Amino acid sequence: MKQFNAYQPLSILAETLQQTHLNTLFASNSQRFADFHVQMPGAMLDFSKQKITQEVLDGLIGMAEEANLADWINRLINGDELNHTEGRKAWHTALRNMSDPIPEVAEAWQKMAYIVDELHQKQMRGYSGKAITDVVNIGVGGSDLGPLMITHALEMQQLPSSPQIHFVSTLDGRQLQSILAKTNPETTLFIVASKSFTTIDTLSLAETAKSWILNSCQNHSEAMRHFIGISTSPEKMGEWGILPQMQLAFWDWVGGRFSMWSTIGLTVAIQLGMDGFKQMLKGAHEVDEHFRKTPFRENIPVLIGLIGIWNTNFLKLAGQAILPYDSRLKHFASYLEQLEMESNGKHTQRNGEFVDYRTCPILWGEVGPNAQHAFYQLLHQGTERVMSDFILFKEGQGSGERAAFHQNLNIANCLAQSRAMMVGQDSDNPHKHYPGDQVSNTLLMTRVDAHHLGMLVAIYEHKVFTQSVIWNINPFDQWGVELGKKLAMGILDSIDRQDASELDQSTQGILQQIWEHKA
Amino acid sequence: MKQFNAYQPLSILAETLQQTHLNTLFASNSQRFADFHVQMPGAMLDFSKQKITQEVLDGLIGMAEEANLADWINRLINGDELNHTEGRKAWHTALRNMSDPIPEVAEAWQKMAYIVDELHQKQMRGYSGKAITDVVNIGVGGSDLGPLMITHALEMQQLPSSPQIHFVSTLDGRQLQSILAKTNPETTLFIVASKSFTTIDTLSLAETAKSWILNSCQNHSEAMRHFIGISTSPEKMGEWGILPQMQLAFWDWVGGRFSMWSTIGLTVAIQLGMDGFKQMLKGAHEVDEHFRKTPFRENIPVLIGLIGIWNTNFLKLAGQAILPYDSRLKHFASYLEQLEMESNGKHTQRNGEFVDYRTCPILWGEVGPNAQHAFYQLLHQGTERVMSDFILFKEGQGSGERAAFHQNLNIANCLAQSRAMMVGQDSDNPHKHYPGDQVSNTLLMTRVDAHHLGMLVAIYEHKVFTQSVIWNINPFDQWGVELGKKLAMGILDSIDRQDASELDQSTQGILQQIWEHKA
Repeated sequence: MKQFNAYQPLSILAETLQQTHLNTLFASNSQRFADFHVQMPGAMLDFSKQKITQEVLDGLIGMAEEANLADWINRLINGDELNHTEGRKAWHTALRNMSDPIPEVAEAWQKMAYIVDELHQKQMRGYSGKAITDVVNIGVGGSDLGPLMITHALEMQQLPSSPQIHFVSTLDGRQLQSILAKTNPETTLFIVASKSFTTIDTLSLAETAKSWILNSCQNHSEAMRHFIGISTSPEKMGEWGILPQMQLAFWDWVGGRFSMWSTIGLTVAIQLGMDGFKQMLKGAHEVDEHFRKTPFRENIPVLIGLIGIWNTNFLKLAGQAILPYDSRLKHFASYLEQLEMESNGKHTQRNGEFVDYRTCPILWGEVGPNAQHAFYQLLHQGTERVMSDFILFKEGQGSGERAAFHQNLNIANCLAQSRAMMVGQDSDNPHKHYPGDQVSNTLLMTRVDAHHLGMLVAIYEHKVFTQSVIWNINPFDQWGVELGKKLAMGILDSIDRQDASELDQSTQGILQQIWEHKA
Repeated sequence: MKQFNAYQPLSILAETLQQTHLNTLFASNSQRFADFHVQMPGAMLDFSKQKITQEVLDGLIGMAEEANLADWINRLINGDELNHTEGRKAWHTALRNMSDPIPEVAEAWQKMAYIVDELHQKQMRGYSGKAITDVVNIGVGGSDLGPLMITHALEMQQLPSSPQIHFVSTLDGRQLQSILAKTNPETTLFIVASKSFTTIDTLSLAETAKSWILNSCQNHSEAMRHFIGISTSPEKMGEWGILPQMQLAFWDWVGGRFSMWSTIGLTVAIQLGMDGFKQMLKGAHEVDEHFRKTPFRENIPVLIGLIGIWNTNFLKLAGQAILPYDSRLKHFASYLEQLEMESNGKHTQRNGEFVDYRTCPILWGEVGPNAQHAFYQLLHQGTERVMSDFILFKEGQGSGERAAFHQNLNIANCLAQSRAMMVGQDSDNPHKHYPGDQVSNTLLMTRVDAHHLGMLVAIYEHKVFTQSVIWNINPFDQWGVELGKKLAMGILDSIDRQDASELDQSTQGILQQIWEHKA
């Protein structure tokens, strides 16, 4: 990053600001909130509780300009081949541009709509003629986290005619076992979602589900009515036995962790109907337009990205906490853990050189009200300097006096925590001393619905892209996960042969203990 | 920490070991697994993939001896007043010593057993005379995470006569709303679990639950048959309306995050029966005995604790990942986030001096097979140096060929990932270069059941205690959470009055936007 002209001045500013308490910044500028918040319809970012001044902001924006961020954004949205290490576009934004749909995508929406309709009309039936009551999504990573996060958040908005939706992802088979114990093979439909349709996690689970169906339905082609496939490979789906009318297309120009906008979002469409699903796309598209057209100084994803760079590379903060103040966003932190750490947890620049600066920090989180009773102790009095994103919604859920009270209590707690982290508190009792000075963003949105969740996810997608441009890395590949996959196949083979002699002593020692226990 | 004689030699060793690849350590010692693993019945710790040598281990153990760790352990288990800032014992170990039970605890077990028995016999009935079918645990932090984690893990071992168990924790009221939509007031029992019985999170939710019951049952005393209270304060429970026979005692010498062994574990006892609950206590007690009696060189919790200190304070690693290879342990990382970060996320020593060294690092995690498809990219190729704990079980779940395959696949993946993190891989393509050299522990246990989960949690409890002794902090208080609570009450008052003028501009600005939206 030292090649940026802005780098040196920013480093000097950082030295001063590391020593300047947030309280001092507020005391010295009576317009601090006015100066350091920006908005778009449905979302407001307050970054006044960051160690940011106008000079810092100018420097960061200067760095983004030096990095040609505007050009990169245009290339992203135009569908240039930005995933150069895999020779692919990263064109998730095209999926949500409904005014100008790609023909193959429009076709897939139609097929999706047909399936959703059949399910809601109780016209999709299992081998014995009974209507489907339960849908189990089998997928992992990007084929799991997005739909899981959204459908969990919008559970109370599920259409009454929707079947029940379940998610299975772990190759240990234990989630699946627990769901099979509760469902009926006659009325259960499986969605097998795998970009390549070769992921062993997903396919081994699908195989187990197939055996379960075949246990009660001996007719193989009838049994296959219980399986929908979502993949880029019709061949692979066909080989596995997915019927042609049950195959949904997915495209290699959509990355797994950017794929909930594609057919991978089928469970969202089942839960909410296609209209609900398209609301989510529309929300994301509005953020795409904002990201492309808004000057950096007012651009929410760009600012979140640059603030993260400031905190990580200049202020040297340790990690990033994600704190949504709404329990419906239970899985949002997990979603972002993948989105951010899999995209930018890299050490190789686009040009092949290794970085000599930090890239993606550790990111973790929890629903805020729960985290208050869990790890906020460390945020308030620990030795790690952490940046936090508070996510708050103006509207609560439900009506009546009790719902209103819970909503006010929730708002009060969210604002109290970011305030406490900022202001701190002196005390004669050193155990009750709070240093304060922990930085945070607050993202204020209107309500938890498909539209605003679409916006929220797109904001973070573009934050990630912004950072990748500054760090000069390709956020769209994930070579780092290949080695483990390869080694796993070798060890699985060792287990089959009960021979670990080619492995390191640690792996050998552990396997030996497992084998002795089995014997 | 500089007062320890071992500090300086360890620092010098750390300089060398930071530059020494794990592969070199393995290559230079053909006995590395033999030298660096220890076990007790039911658990084996492999720490050969840490940057540890015999010299380092001697230094760390020397430091533990200088800190009088053995004495601290005895004082903990003897029930000395180790939580000195609150003038209390931290005597959770006494709860699992069933050969020598404290009379008030034995009495509480009896009352618990009676309630469990009534529920299983369908003799506990709601206001309309119908048997209870659903139990909702209302509690937050320590009154939520332990029972939630255990009952989720042991869902498939639930006794057929057990009612369904639900958990509600978040003060936003949305989890509760979702559960009330699915349950019947005639047959739902609420457990209100709050140490002080003043936690606003819990009591506001309990109040909402009470209104819900009173909506369909006008008789107040009949309605109160739907509420069990668990608290140290019978007065507060009585004032709220909990009937005497529905009150379970809890003790101020048990910290919230160490309380699943107490009456707070009621849902575990409901799910598994009292026998199952006591298996969990027994497992933990075995670890207590191991912790107290085993030389440090063979002591699992002591070693995990000292290795963490080595990684944090000497090798300066960034954070700690918790990676259980069993999807039943879905909530284990959240549980540890509280246990570790709330206990040791502190900057004040026991003597009141501020630390000049790091204490608890950021800890986060996810079920391993899912995390592989989420944030492992960062572990393999990111710029952050992270220590990981892999947790693996020798036995899987279920029987038959498919279950056996999933279990082998799971073991292969766990071992492949720790191996890949260690060995890395060179490549001509810099995008496919894996530096390796990421350290990890593997904790190998027998199976996921009450006994081994009791052991697992106790191992980490004592890890935390070990580290607190070295860092010279009191792990049993949590003053850091008080300021936020206080500020929340002030902001709630501002919201009621619609007057934020006394607050900082950021808080004012956000409230203003919420109020404008409402109007």
